[in-house]
Amino acid sequence: MTEKEIQRLLIDVRRGNLPLGRALERLRRLPFEDLGFAKIDHHRSLRQGYAEVIYAPGKRPEQVVSVVRRMMRNEHNILITRGTRALYRRVKRVARSARFHELSGAISIRKNSKVVGKGLILVISAGTSDIPVAEEALVTAEVLGNRAESLYDVGVAGLHRLMGHQQKLSAARVIICVAGMEGALPSVVGGLVRVPVIAVPTSVGYGASMSGVAALLAMLNSCVSNVAVVNIDNGFGAGCLASVINRL
Amino acid sequence: MTEKEIQRLLIDVRRGNLPLGRALERLRRLPFEDLGFAKIDHHRSLRQGYAEVIYAPGKRPEQVVSVVRRMMRNEHNILITRGTRALYRRVKRVARSARFHELSGAISIRKNSKVVGKGLILVISAGTSDIPVAEEALVTAEVLGNRAESLYDVGVAGLHRLMGHQQKLSAARVIICVAGMEGALPSVVGGLVRVPVIAVPTSVGYGASMSGVAALLAMLNSCVSNVAVVNIDNGFGAGCLASVINRL
Amino acid sequence: MTEKEIQRLLIDVRRGNLPLGRALERLRRLPFEDLGFAKIDHHRSLRQGYAEVIYAPGKRPEQVVSVVRRMMRNEHNILITRGTRALYRRVKRVARSARFHELSGAISIRKNSKVVGKGLILVISAGTSDIPVAEEALVTAEVLGNRAESLYDVGVAGLHRLMGHQQKLSAARVIICVAGMEGALPSVVGGLVRVPVIAVPTSVGYGASMSGVAALLAMLNSCVSNVAVVNIDNGFGAGCLASVINRL
Amino acid sequence: MTEKEIQRLLIDVRRGNLPLGRALERLRRLPFEDLGFAKIDHHRSLRQGYAEVIYAPGKRPEQVVSVVRRMMRNEHNILITRGTRALYRRVKRVARSARFHELSGAISIRKNSKVVGKGLILVISAGTSDIPVAEEALVTAEVLGNRAESLYDVGVAGLHRLMGHQQKLSAARVIICVAGMEGALPSVVGGLVRVPVIAVPTSVGYGASMSGVAALLAMLNSCVSNVAVVNIDNGFGAGCLASVINRL
Amino acid sequence: MTEKEIQRLLIDVRRGNLPLGRALERLRRLPFEDLGFAKIDHHRSLRQGYAEVIYAPGKRPEQVVSVVRRMMRNEHNILITRGTRALYRRVKRVARSARFHELSGAISIRKNSKVVGKGLILVISAGTSDIPVAEEALVTAEVLGNRAESLYDVGVAGLHRLMGHQQKLSAARVIICVAGMEGALPSVVGGLVRVPVIAVPTSVGYGASMSGVAALLAMLNSCVSNVAVVNIDNGFGAGCLASVINRL
Amino acid sequence: MTEKEIQRLLIDVRRGNLPLGRALERLRRLPFEDLGFAKIDHHRSLRQGYAEVIYAPGKRPEQVVSVVRRMMRNEHNILITRGTRALYRRVKRVARSARFHELSGAISIRKNSKVVGKGLILVISAGTSDIPVAEEALVTAEVLGNRAESLYDVGVAGLHRLMGHQQKLSAARVIICVAGMEGALPSVVGGLVRVPVIAVPTSVGYGASMSGVAALLAMLNSCVSNVAVVNIDNGFGAGCLASVINRL
Amino acid sequence: MTEKEIQRLLIDVRRGNLPLGRALERLRRLPFEDLGFAKIDHHRSLRQGYAEVIYAPGKRPEQVVSVVRRMMRNEHNILITRGTRALYRRVKRVARSARFHELSGAISIRKNSKVVGKGLILVISAGTSDIPVAEEALVTAEVLGNRAESLYDVGVAGLHRLMGHQQKLSAARVIICVAGMEGALPSVVGGLVRVPVIAVPTSVGYGASMSGVAALLAMLNSCVSNVAVVNIDNGFGAGCLASVINRL
Amino acid sequence: MTEKEIQRLLIDVRRGNLPLGRALERLRRLPFEDLGFAKIDHHRSLRQGYAEVIYAPGKRPEQVVSVVRRMMRNEHNILITRGTRALYRRVKRVARSARFHELSGAISIRKNSKVVGKGLILVISAGTSDIPVAEEALVTAEVLGNRAESLYDVGVAGLHRLMGHQQKLSAARVIICVAGMEGALPSVVGGLVRVPVIAVPTSVGYGASMSGVAALLAMLNSCVSNVAVVNIDNGFGAGCLASVINRL
Repeated sequence: MTEKEIQRLLIDVRRGNLPLGRALERLRRLPFEDLGFAKIDHHRSLRQGYAEVIYAPGKRPEQVVSVVRRMMRNEHNILITRGTRALYRRVKRVARSARFHELSGAISIRKNSKVVGKGLILVISAGTSDIPVAEEALVTAEVLGNRAESLYDVGVAGLHRLMGHQQKLSAARVIICVAGMEGALPSVVGGLVRVPVIAVPTSVGYGASMSGVAALLAMLNSCVSNVAVVNIDNGFGAGCLASVINRL
Repeated sequence: MTEKEIQRLLIDVRRGNLPLGRALERLRRLPFEDLGFAKIDHHRSLRQGYAEVIYAPGKRPEQVVSVVRRMMRNEHNILITRGTRALYRRVKRVARSARFHELSGAISIRKNSKVVGKGLILVISAGTSDIPVAEEALVTAEVLGNRAESLYDVGVAGLHRLMGHQQKLSAARVIICVAGMEGALPSVVGGLVRVPVIAVPTSVGYGASMSGVAALLAMLNSCVSNVAVVNIDNGFGAGCLASVINRL
Repeated sequence: MTEKEIQRLLIDVRRGNLPLGRALERLRRLPFEDLGFAKIDHHRSLRQGYAEVIYAPGKRPEQVVSVVRRMMRNEHNILITRGTRALYRRVKRVARSARFHELSGAISIRKNSKVVGKGLILVISAGTSDIPVAEEALVTAEVLGNRAESLYDVGVAGLHRLMGHQQKLSAARVIICVAGMEGALPSVVGGLVRVPVIAVPTSVGYGASMSGVAALLAMLNSCVSNVAVVNIDNGFGAGCLASVINRL
Repeated sequence: MTEKEIQRLLIDVRRGNLPLGRALERLRRLPFEDLGFAKIDHHRSLRQGYAEVIYAPGKRPEQVVSVVRRMMRNEHNILITRGTRALYRRVKRVARSARFHELSGAISIRKNSKVVGKGLILVISAGTSDIPVAEEALVTAEVLGNRAESLYDVGVAGLHRLMGHQQKLSAARVIICVAGMEGALPSVVGGLVRVPVIAVPTSVGYGASMSGVAALLAMLNSCVSNVAVVNIDNGFGAGCLASVINRL
Repeated sequence: MTEKEIQRLLIDVRRGNLPLGRALERLRRLPFEDLGFAKIDHHRSLRQGYAEVIYAPGKRPEQVVSVVRRMMRNEHNILITRGTRALYRRVKRVARSARFHELSGAISIRKNSKVVGKGLILVISAGTSDIPVAEEALVTAEVLGNRAESLYDVGVAGLHRLMGHQQKLSAARVIICVAGMEGALPSVVGGLVRVPVIAVPTSVGYGASMSGVAALLAMLNSCVSNVAVVNIDNGFGAGCLASVINRL
Repeated sequence: MTEKEIQRLLIDVRRGNLPLGRALERLRRLPFEDLGFAKIDHHRSLRQGYAEVIYAPGKRPEQVVSVVRRMMRNEHNILITRGTRALYRRVKRVARSARFHELSGAISIRKNSKVVGKGLILVISAGTSDIPVAEEALVTAEVLGNRAESLYDVGVAGLHRLMGHQQKLSAARVIICVAGMEGALPSVVGGLVRVPVIAVPTSVGYGASMSGVAALLAMLNSCVSNVAVVNIDNGFGAGCLASVINRL
Repeated sequence: MTEKEIQRLLIDVRRGNLPLGRALERLRRLPFEDLGFAKIDHHRSLRQGYAEVIYAPGKRPEQVVSVVRRMMRNEHNILITRGTRALYRRVKRVARSARFHELSGAISIRKNSKVVGKGLILVISAGTSDIPVAEEALVTAEVLGNRAESLYDVGVAGLHRLMGHQQKLSAARVIICVAGMEGALPSVVGGLVRVPVIAVPTSVGYGASMSGVAALLAMLNSCVSNVAVVNIDNGFGAGCLASVINRL
Repeated sequence: MTEKEIQRLLIDVRRGNLPLGRALERLRRLPFEDLGFAKIDHHRSLRQGYAEVIYAPGKRPEQVVSVVRRMMRNEHNILITRGTRALYRRVKRVARSARFHELSGAISIRKNSKVVGKGLILVISAGTSDIPVAEEALVTAEVLGNRAESLYDVGVAGLHRLMGHQQKLSAARVIICVAGMEGALPSVVGGLVRVPVIAVPTSVGYGASMSGVAALLAMLNSCVSNVAVVNIDNGFGAGCLASVINRL
């Protein structure tokens, strides 16, 4: 509820157009709608410029479909993360334009293909096993209205592979850098560019990788200063934040 | 070395203006200067848009002063982080304009007060004990050429204190959110704004705070999607990244 | 064995009504009954005001059923936690009134619907994925003789959703606050009320959530002072403690 | 700001007694006062029934004294935690009635000795080294208007010491149970009573005690169900929560 | 190879009964036999007084059976730990007297029922879920030639259950104390007896039990001084050590 | 209170020699004496066969001296652990026979030099830095009435140093094995003997030794089965347990 | 790209044999080839002396086969790690000479059996459960052109088993030492030889082994100084490094 | 004791030149000498090719000096690690040629300057704060008879600094790579060379560096395969291992 609306409400109260009880109630009530198992927040996209997003794990297919059906009534893109092909088939029935992104399990429904981000979001991954997380970031950035490109398998063990793409690096306005194991890529990339780098540790690795904690710690300790970190495997979060930055 | 420079070099080689040996050497040599104990990297500010920065702990005062003296020859602002009043006094002798920021121990030398950041960077802290880290972020942002403001002691235990400043929140282009203990503030702030939020966990707390790990984990798990995290107590890093974003 | 009973025993000894051997034995023997694989403790409900509770995992269905059959002989409500629909069907045969609570897997058998708690226990959850744990707390509180209500999906990312229910918050005598990920909800709720808040971290999340440790640490570091914490996913324990407090 | 006050405000607006601008401002402004380094929140005691509390570490003596002087203007008790004898002497000058609690470093200023808690708060400690934390809990409970007693050095290695005090145990309405090392005491005490037990792990111990983490984990895993846990060494928090419960 | 045998060897060398080369070889060769995938060490029982033991997980049934067949040639009892009913059936074919201990998965083959331990080994468990580990300890102690008894489900939440068995406690020469969750039982038991207590943490629990780490830490921090600890779920190790002590 | 004493009490009650009130009180009262800051438990030595022990850290010298003075009235040996030379000098004034053990800081007062342990307790240390912990174990074993010897600096990096002492190893009835860093010594020693080995990890080491956690974990995972573990640096506990075993 | 090649390129530029654009491109482009899902790096074997290696987990069989087919065109040996028998059958169809190493799941394709390593690589394992990791190291070393032997099941609990093989130990030029549980073997082996020892912790164990972390920490704290450590279960890495050392 | 010596001993026995008792004793006795607080192992240098080394922390100056005096009698170089200038002055009195290495606190005494290592050992450090550890490695390598050079402050944030030294990199036979914070340098260096890289994590950093654990984990997870890791800050161990490899 904006300050303006409150002002209007107070004017209505003063003019006697609005009974006290209802004024009180409106001051308390904030805009959301109750589906029983989850409150959809239509205004969230207004407040935050996001598309609607559904995190699939732990939800039954019919729950997801029912939420999608409701969401289809307004104009936002829809993104379902960590879905399955089976879920995709059911969603497809209520949303013709749904697309399945196999590696990451993302399902995207684009009703609006306008590009609102100002520059290019580049998603870099260190190894081939990091691609599912990178793809989630890529799809998220696109659904949220950005131009996005990828650059995969350019880990620090073979610097020449990364170095061969310096033009791509310098073309980006925001970089998402996805890496598991020792998580060294964001430090190297951060040292080569002057744009923000969002580091995404992945759970790729074994033993002392501790399900991604090694990469996470490495990224938090990065010796460059244009890097910030999101949760392990959180490609979605990185895509969102990149989009928020890219709209500035 | 930019692509253009390499092109020029190749042209010189073709024209015979540049002997092979020297061309080879220039291709290999990259611009830095050796002080013995630390390589100053003048070109870093070109590449990354940063001022020169010295991390004081573990360096002897005369080392810091000698680096400062060298840096004074060019036009960048200088920032010394985690210094002491004693160090400040010595720096002051070679740099008249040096200022000491007591809570954070930062020493700033501004030779250039141009504002290059496009919007306001707002630094929020949860508790009074978080202020030293917040101040480091604030000073860093300013030294790097940004307008920056602070909003301290607005932790989630008293939401009304934060809510009373929503206009300030919405005026910011980038928000730095500093919190120790349970580290809940970035999630709350992130839900109220649509700009990037850089979360800085602090080591404030005791027992299960585990020197800031509790706050760090909380921030990495934030349920909002416009938040990224830097290292515990890393006010400097947050200020840098905010500045990089604010220049976009 | 109360002090009174010991006194009576000593009197009987003095009067010669009780042989020494039996007196000695009674002093040593405490009231319990041996089923072989688990000692049912009928007197526990007297001592602690609890219903009888069976923790299902690791027990075979026939073991559970046999314990339920024994418990049916006295007047307490019975609660089976973390059961399955299959177990429910078998329990139903010996306890007609059994009810299955699907999300949490709880099975409740109410033989006594008297309300003994003095006020309302409110169970709040941050996200939809936290509901199973919240439901376990809710059912537990009810089985133990309390009025209990729920308020789900009011996480700190959308404060307006929580704020829209301040009346519900202030109506509660005890609040159970269930949250995974960054576990910030108890701090926010604790700052809004003046009743005890029992925080339940959940294992909801991934990566740096570390199976609920992030939420647990956050809650232990809460900056409000009316919050205490129980084990990760321990909805049952929270319901019990809330009931103990609500009977005071 | 209570619902009633908002109603009154709206009535004033309707009657024209209150200009729009000021109404708007009052709706936005919440009651706090700015000292620069920390916002005192006079209304917190109203909202939460607490005395005013100052956490001393990291604050300079003059800061503490200046806050105390302000607080002396209203009627609440004041509690300074983790202070020193030196700090106490300075506080004493502005608050004659200040008392120093040596073991815990607490400084209490009682302006109001009314007992508002309904029953007895019993503070139990396992070993003599746990007493500082226990004392902090005890002083906190008293300053917040409760009758409180202590029972120290009754660890589980000598059960008879605890058993000799069962009457004291059953006299309590709330129990605070302080223990380091293996943190077993709350489980034993919780099994003997039917009132809420607030468990406080302490950092007493060495090696595998991991600064209190061993005791913390033990308490979180307690096999009794009337126990909840606060942060390591957080005697203050335990005292607050006990007081909140004791006022119910 | 004992000192005596070396002496005899040297005598043989001096007398010329043993060629140098073979003497050298015998000094180097130590008695073991190679099965390819595992070296059986017949002499281990001589050196350590143990029966032969096979740890089943990770071995194929035919491997286990082939080792058992070899072992059957000498006079020791045989113990297979963490087996399955299927494995038991195959072992039964080559060892008629094999017995299956269902809860722990142990398979015992007793060829020698002489009791060599001097006193009683008492195995105590805190909860019913700890019984599998306790049973492994019990069977191990018996197979190694000891009289052993059990006392299950006497956790500290209901002290009277433990107290009702003090005679059993004082009858034991060695006590094995098995507990998960908060692991408090060994401290309480250790305070009641004056014999060695071997504490076995179990992985019973969830959340902050961290797969038995909570119990392990608690036991290592025990405030009594007749307790030592073995690995989580290591009933076998506890049984062995108890046997070694009981033979002293 | 033994069963016999209770029987006698009941007889007295029956005979009318003991008034009810006093019988009740005696049943409730258990023998300890209150010094204010710590309950001395004279009967503990009866129940557990220990000398009286004072853990010095965190106690003021006058507290220690006052406890010592009281203890001097009965016949037990006294052990003060982790003291200082200064403390020793003060203790010496009230206990002429006090001895200071410099490396471990132990202070022993022997009033009774009878050997009650049946065999030799051998204390082995891996490195010279482990000697303080080893000495604490040695002194403890001696004060508790055992013959004890030491074997220092026989770490696994130079097996020949250990091997040169196999006779000493086989002479022991109980072995205490003290090691920091990788904590490998107990496994090697345990494989060479058939007596119980009490493993004591020390905090000797740096970096990945994690203050002794590396050694602790190694010992808990020992591949031999006559090893149990006590807390990091807990020489005292090892000495106690060794003594309890040696009296069997 | 070697220095020589750059020199030649510059010469071509000067002579006008190479247009600027192509020179620039060649300076930027480094030799790799894009398969879409993974960049094969033919030159890696040149730069690092390795065979080509494919890490199978997370790759679909057809992906592996397609990479193998490409690799078959050049002369290097090929190693697929952590494969399955099913994968082996498919690889076999395109690479007749493929061999399956069952315990480790390695698939080796040797096109070149020249021995390039200068000495013997000895792979030692502590227990039978460590053999899969040891075999991976062994196969890796062989595929990379080394003579390699194994010595299994020589853990420190039975030192005589290891001691019986001292000749084998002294024959090796590099030793790989594989151990789980307490990870003590590398320290013992390192003390017996004067060649480099590469320690490989394995995830063998349970409870406090923490999936190999106990062994890892032990090895990092080894008291001998010819030991370095690779990741848990990383037999492949150990084999590679041993090969690199053995070629020196 | 070598095989040859045993053979000679057996011959002496056969010839009757050596009485049985003394033969037995010699077989048991291994060559070391007892100083009371530490067994000097003169033969260690024979067996392992090391100089004698003293780890200073925890030893009193007179102990160190007394050990040095003994060591001076033979021909090895002596290295004292982690000493102080004060210790150096005392050592200097008994060993004229002692040199103090200020940053690392190493004290070296070279009696033998022969170079026995076959190639160059290159010590690389990421930041200036890592130099103390790097220097310890460098001095160790030199004392052990190797040519060693350093390359400091070439962290991955400024790749050009490292790239400008590729010739130095390719000149090395063994590389020691020292880095704190994110520990990324060994992965980058390992990808550029084909010699063994010994990675040394340092405790440089703060917050999520966790005293070097972040760097340690990163290095263990290195995506290149010519890297092995030693303990945090263990420059000495790296120098030793590099020397062992360099002598091959």
